[in-house]
Amino acid sequence: MAIVLHDLAGVEDRRFSPYCWRARLALHHKQLDHEARGVTYADIQAFSEDYGSTTPVLDDNGHIVPDSGAIATYLEATYPDRPSLFGGEPGRALTRFVENWTATAVHASLGGMVVKDIHDHVVEGDRAYFRQSREARFGATLEATQTGREDRLPDFRKGLAPLRLTLRQQPFLGGDAPIYADYIVVAAFQWARTISDFRLVEADDPVWHWIERLGDLHGGLLRDAPSYY
Amino acid sequence: MAIVLHDLAGVEDRRFSPYCWRARLALHHKQLDHEARGVTYADIQAFSEDYGSTTPVLDDNGHIVPDSGAIATYLEATYPDRPSLFGGEPGRALTRFVENWTATAVHASLGGMVVKDIHDHVVEGDRAYFRQSREARFGATLEATQTGREDRLPDFRKGLAPLRLTLRQQPFLGGDAPIYADYIVVAAFQWARTISDFRLVEADDPVWHWIERLGDLHGGLLRDAPSYY
Repeated sequence: MAIVLHDLAGVEDRRFSPYCWRARLALHHKQLDHEARGVTYADIQAFSEDYGSTTPVLDDNGHIVPDSGAIATYLEATYPDRPSLFGGEPGRALTRFVENWTATAVHASLGGMVVKDIHDHVVEGDRAYFRQSREARFGATLEATQTGREDRLPDFRKGLAPLRLTLRQQPFLGGDAPIYADYIVVAAFQWARTISDFRLVEADDPVWHWIERLGDLHGGLLRDAPSYY
Repeated sequence: MAIVLHDLAGVEDRRFSPYCWRARLALHHKQLDHEARGVTYADIQAFSEDYGSTTPVLDDNGHIVPDSGAIATYLEATYPDRPSLFGGEPGRALTRFVENWTATAVHASLGGMVVKDIHDHVVEGDRAYFRQSREARFGATLEATQTGREDRLPDFRKGLAPLRLTLRQQPFLGGDAPIYADYIVVAAFQWARTISDFRLVEADDPVWHWIERLGDLHGGLLRDAPSYY
């Protein structure tokens, strides 16, 4: 039996969860055959007693691992002969810094800029849940949260400076080749492009060139997924 | 002959350059005997034809290496049998990300918060040069640049979120033990504390606890240097 990844899916089979993208990229990096099986929020809640309430959930021949971070750790430990996600312990430790930077400098502002677009791309049966949970989180309607995003874009782009400067020095965060840290960050951009036509970075930004380089990898996985650009 | 590090010094032999602190910490991490020899801006300019115009400059028995980044790379390559500064290539690559984050999220705002204090601690003969060059850089007097720093402090502290979150997960950026990435960041705080009594982080901040942990290392090098707190 192949490895199965339970992967959040919206309309037109759009796969938008950034955490699921992290896990899919990790599976490809480890060169492990797997099926990324689309699930809805309703599906998740239906099997939440076993698997927790979030995606992704990995099923490696019956061994269940929820949470993208735990999945990366599991894959690195279980398949040490495959290409490393972290490049050893200091790399693992510094990847946590990149992850925390992504949460605070990328996800925090990006989420609000596309949350109504996400809503419009989750399946019909998931929309009430999505609206209620996200409006509670943001303390505003989805529409109000997303409004004015053009004005917030310059600050968002400015906040990408550490990423941009690094990508002027080397092709990937991992150096000459990508590692899990690259996947953590690019998954946020993949999240946005699958459900929104709102461009986060300009075409001449080193960040965009890096997104394109990553799009070429793993058989065009990121580039060929249903997305707006 | 021992290794000599030309290390920027102010009044009362205060060593304040963050780049020099990076190099000193790297030398200690590599367990290399060395002398950190104090120099002034005027000294640097006097020998700039040979050594470049900035500190630190490493003199390893006649082999001259200017620039803290080049010094770290040199030490790692020249003394591979000593404790690693990067933990391999992915660690080296991710360290560049930490360095660029430090430049944009830490140094950029920190510099303006203590620039008048730096001026007051460089030696008398360096003050005219320091004032002129920094006022040109900031486009304002040193006094005006530093004014209002209390109001900028909350944003500065908020910007430390990726560091703070990571230090809630592990004792050092390098994991269980510090690596060069830790030194890059802590050197900025050491810069401030040697020439200013303006507290950048609160005593209950995980960032401060990490500064204290690093202060215990290398024979108390950071903690015992002349400083305000």
